[in-house]
Amino acid sequence: MDKELTEMSIQERLLKLREQMKEKGIDVYIVPTADFHQTEYVGEYFKARKYITNFSGSAGTAVITLEEARLWVDGRYFIQAAKQLEGTTVEMMKMAEPGVPTIKEYLKTALKEGSVLGFDGRVVAMGDGVDYEKIVADKNGKIIYEYDLIAAIWEDRPAMSEEPAWILEQKYAGETTESKLARIREYMKDNDATVHVLTSLDDICWILNMRGNDIEFFPFVLSYAIITMDEMHLYINDAKLNAEMKEIFAKDCVVLHPYNDIYEDVKKIADGESVLVDPVRLNYALYSNLPDGVKKVEKRNPEILFKAIKNPVEIENIRQAQIKDSVAHVKFMKWVKENVGKMEITEMSAAEKLDEFRKEMGNFIQPSFEAISAYGEHAALMHYTSSPETNVRLKEGSVYLTDTGAGFYEGSTDITRTYALGEIPDIMKEHFTLTLMGNLGLANAKFLHGCGGVNLDIMARKPLWDRGLDYKCGTGHGVGYLLSIHEGPAGFGWQNRSGNAPTLEEGMILTDEPGIYIEGSHGIRLENELLVQKGEVNEYGQFMYLEAITYIPMDLDAVKVEMLPEETRIQLNDYHKTVYEKVSPYLNDEEKEWLKKYTRAI
Amino acid sequence: MDKELTEMSIQERLLKLREQMKEKGIDVYIVPTADFHQTEYVGEYFKARKYITNFSGSAGTAVITLEEARLWVDGRYFIQAAKQLEGTTVEMMKMAEPGVPTIKEYLKTALKEGSVLGFDGRVVAMGDGVDYEKIVADKNGKIIYEYDLIAAIWEDRPAMSEEPAWILEQKYAGETTESKLARIREYMKDNDATVHVLTSLDDICWILNMRGNDIEFFPFVLSYAIITMDEMHLYINDAKLNAEMKEIFAKDCVVLHPYNDIYEDVKKIADGESVLVDPVRLNYALYSNLPDGVKKVEKRNPEILFKAIKNPVEIENIRQAQIKDSVAHVKFMKWVKENVGKMEITEMSAAEKLDEFRKEMGNFIQPSFEAISAYGEHAALMHYTSSPETNVRLKEGSVYLTDTGAGFYEGSTDITRTYALGEIPDIMKEHFTLTLMGNLGLANAKFLHGCGGVNLDIMARKPLWDRGLDYKCGTGHGVGYLLSIHEGPAGFGWQNRSGNAPTLEEGMILTDEPGIYIEGSHGIRLENELLVQKGEVNEYGQFMYLEAITYIPMDLDAVKVEMLPEETRIQLNDYHKTVYEKVSPYLNDEEKEWLKKYTRAI
Repeated sequence: MDKELTEMSIQERLLKLREQMKEKGIDVYIVPTADFHQTEYVGEYFKARKYITNFSGSAGTAVITLEEARLWVDGRYFIQAAKQLEGTTVEMMKMAEPGVPTIKEYLKTALKEGSVLGFDGRVVAMGDGVDYEKIVADKNGKIIYEYDLIAAIWEDRPAMSEEPAWILEQKYAGETTESKLARIREYMKDNDATVHVLTSLDDICWILNMRGNDIEFFPFVLSYAIITMDEMHLYINDAKLNAEMKEIFAKDCVVLHPYNDIYEDVKKIADGESVLVDPVRLNYALYSNLPDGVKKVEKRNPEILFKAIKNPVEIENIRQAQIKDSVAHVKFMKWVKENVGKMEITEMSAAEKLDEFRKEMGNFIQPSFEAISAYGEHAALMHYTSSPETNVRLKEGSVYLTDTGAGFYEGSTDITRTYALGEIPDIMKEHFTLTLMGNLGLANAKFLHGCGGVNLDIMARKPLWDRGLDYKCGTGHGVGYLLSIHEGPAGFGWQNRSGNAPTLEEGMILTDEPGIYIEGSHGIRLENELLVQKGEVNEYGQFMYLEAITYIPMDLDAVKVEMLPEETRIQLNDYHKTVYEKVSPYLNDEEKEWLKKYTRAI
Repeated sequence: MDKELTEMSIQERLLKLREQMKEKGIDVYIVPTADFHQTEYVGEYFKARKYITNFSGSAGTAVITLEEARLWVDGRYFIQAAKQLEGTTVEMMKMAEPGVPTIKEYLKTALKEGSVLGFDGRVVAMGDGVDYEKIVADKNGKIIYEYDLIAAIWEDRPAMSEEPAWILEQKYAGETTESKLARIREYMKDNDATVHVLTSLDDICWILNMRGNDIEFFPFVLSYAIITMDEMHLYINDAKLNAEMKEIFAKDCVVLHPYNDIYEDVKKIADGESVLVDPVRLNYALYSNLPDGVKKVEKRNPEILFKAIKNPVEIENIRQAQIKDSVAHVKFMKWVKENVGKMEITEMSAAEKLDEFRKEMGNFIQPSFEAISAYGEHAALMHYTSSPETNVRLKEGSVYLTDTGAGFYEGSTDITRTYALGEIPDIMKEHFTLTLMGNLGLANAKFLHGCGGVNLDIMARKPLWDRGLDYKCGTGHGVGYLLSIHEGPAGFGWQNRSGNAPTLEEGMILTDEPGIYIEGSHGIRLENELLVQKGEVNEYGQFMYLEAITYIPMDLDAVKVEMLPEETRIQLNDYHKTVYEKVSPYLNDEEKEWLKKYTRAI
């Protein structure tokens, strides 16, 4: 789009929005980056914040007053936002920078006595909405959450996705909807709740063993649900469901309703009912529409923990998915190492090549998230996406980092490897070796049941911290089964954040991905998935351990053997032995020979 | 006391207590183990729970109804309580055992509609009292907290301690009361508080650089305080203070009042004032006496963090105290190793001998806590106290564990060593070596500022967890400067408890004391104190490290060298080199020779 036109356009859009605000009596209007379901990625229909600010990043919140427009963005986006906001009159607010107020702090000054705060209550989480209520109450103002003001001015808005839904067969899902609903209702009973309102797509899809294609990368189906003690009400565009699905749902007492009807239906919940509300997952509009006579039980959605603990069928499938992806990676690793410098390989073509190898393995649906395929200094950018503007050719003399994932019917993967292309500088090898020590250190942890990621994180960081190095992110996250790629509740990280505290339970699967990022030079990340397992139980309690279920060589061309402690060297050799055992049955003789070399004991 | 008499006596006492309860209209009466100041140890005057149940342990709470009497005790005391409760009609409630309700759960069933719950509000923490309020409110009952019913029936109750107070000189304290009050008032301002009510003795003693002798082992002074923006009101028995102290206090605008007057004085705090209340530290009676028109700001007492971060003068003194105690330990270690089997050494005489060596070092006030001096299987009991009934002679062939501490004017110490007496079984050496690996592992941690004990604890447990072993307690705690020996807010532990989360700040001093305890056989514990230090600051943040400031050999007679990872072996040799450098200047030639051997590189 022409730059001049864009600038005019955003200013015009803001003008039109302010007209809408005046009409509704709204003084300050918030436009977050969210759909109605608090999903990590949002579809084109939901990109209202981009429409009103021109900023195209995946995260950021706009706050518009009658005079000003501001956009809060995090550190990843300072440079991109500065460019895209040029001439728009929208001011960038750099989150977490000294002296920059948070949105809530800003609202305390921007809202005057009696001011009206507006937002579309469907795209704001209940917890945030309740916080806004308090801020507004202090000013004797009020909230108007009923209007999507962007809808009124966005003429060529893309339609909402209408892709068909499909059933994830029992051989993949491993638990029936009936069984899942029974467990959920048990939880509701234990928490004195009679009604459970859901907006989160992964929770709904998990319960119904349903998948679809409404969100990029995540096979979600746009829908809402209300679970009572004897029925489940599913709010969904009827056209998404085929006859077979409707039949299956009917057996589980799932009653179908049009997608948007939930907003009126929650108003009809009878006085005396007790509704489970998750402040992080429920949207504010649904929460606010609950009648006053209804009791609200604030609890985390039970599906969050239930689906994080994979059942035996899921685990067996995920093991298969990991082997498939490992085979694809091994073929890819051989291909890239043998062909770099000889043929034209770019970041983008490399990512495509890896997906080709994946497709060969069968049952491949789609990538499980946006590929990070980064050469040299690009690898130092943790969230780099290669595009035609940035795409570079892979050359010998530096590292190539691939952080990608596959959605197979057998489950989703999230795997990172960093490969030495030709001979690389010593400092890169040193950083590779430290990252490897961190990856293996965490994987090797034995611990008592009750530990969370916060207890174990230092096992990954120790080699780095000992040398004054670090990576500015968590060490790992849960992975959904054809659901979200970042799945709660548990994760690895040292900071006192909600995701690092939950107990690591048998059957959880988390990533282990330490890294070292040197701006302008190189980046290293090594990521396996770990399965949480039960070990011995004795007088001290239940011991737990972690099993690496990703089987791809850690590039020995980049390892400085002399840096490895004895224990780590043995662990690496054991790991490589397993890699060969798991992957070689799927390789031809030449590939086997090659893999033997890259899994040799050192 | 004659057993028959005791039994009669407890039943009689319960009868008398119930008469008192009926007279006041109380249905259920709680008698905890506490003084008016929530102190870890309590003086004889405060042992009301022992008086009414015959149970003499250091922790436990009695709950008495008109028909029943129950005593909640933790796992340390199940055996002792069973014996002491025999024939008393008091039923033991084993805390944390399956099916045993907590006190609060029990109260929910024991209290009937409209019931009255009673306790002496001075011996109950505000937080607990508020919890009781909620339980009682659900029953439409009420709380009576104004009476110490035990006082009415306890005829020969010991008097409250009236020991004199004394001033800790500036060369030891390192910060004036004026400066401390300025920091506290800054904190009050930041939290919109105008009044700060204190019942905690360590906080008050720290502010006033005052010490005394009212609690066994802890040099505390019984007192309360109210801090306003321009005065500090000290509630204390006037006879404890000499003319010099009164003069010093007057300069700092400290106004003196009789000890008990605070209960009436808080009732006079003016409407509109805003009082800082710490739910864990303030007692419930003072909290309840605050007028309704007073605003309550719930915050942790600022003194907790202030005094945990030792100032440079304190740190220099503590380093001296640690060297003094290390010298005493080295002399003791030599003595016990050379004389075991040759002369009569018992657990009790050994503890006395160690204190004799301490006295030789000068400026020794008293032990900083009750000595644990344990031979062989006794060492497996974490909280063992040797008494004439249990005292045994030290012999070759097992281990001897000493966990003791000194209060020097230069600060308090808390040190544990385990020594091999003669040749010991291989399994003891193995456990010693694992404990040593844990102790050194934690001491060696480098980490980013922001980490708490919860992040680092696994560094101490890793060698044990790797082998299915553990110790059922935290790894370490803060140490006060002639104050509490267990001092908050920070500690080392993996469990999600309040003490493990706080950030480790430069100048904090904590213990590092992993152990292995094999019931009926032996116990190993090795405890150094660690000083939290700042390391390099770079793009990743402020790095921190730990410095061991205790200099006593780790008994090489008990180390299996082949078990030590290379890194740990080097660390041990470095540590022993430092031990020799720090301690040898205080030794004679023979002692030096001996120390050289026990600090040799391995």
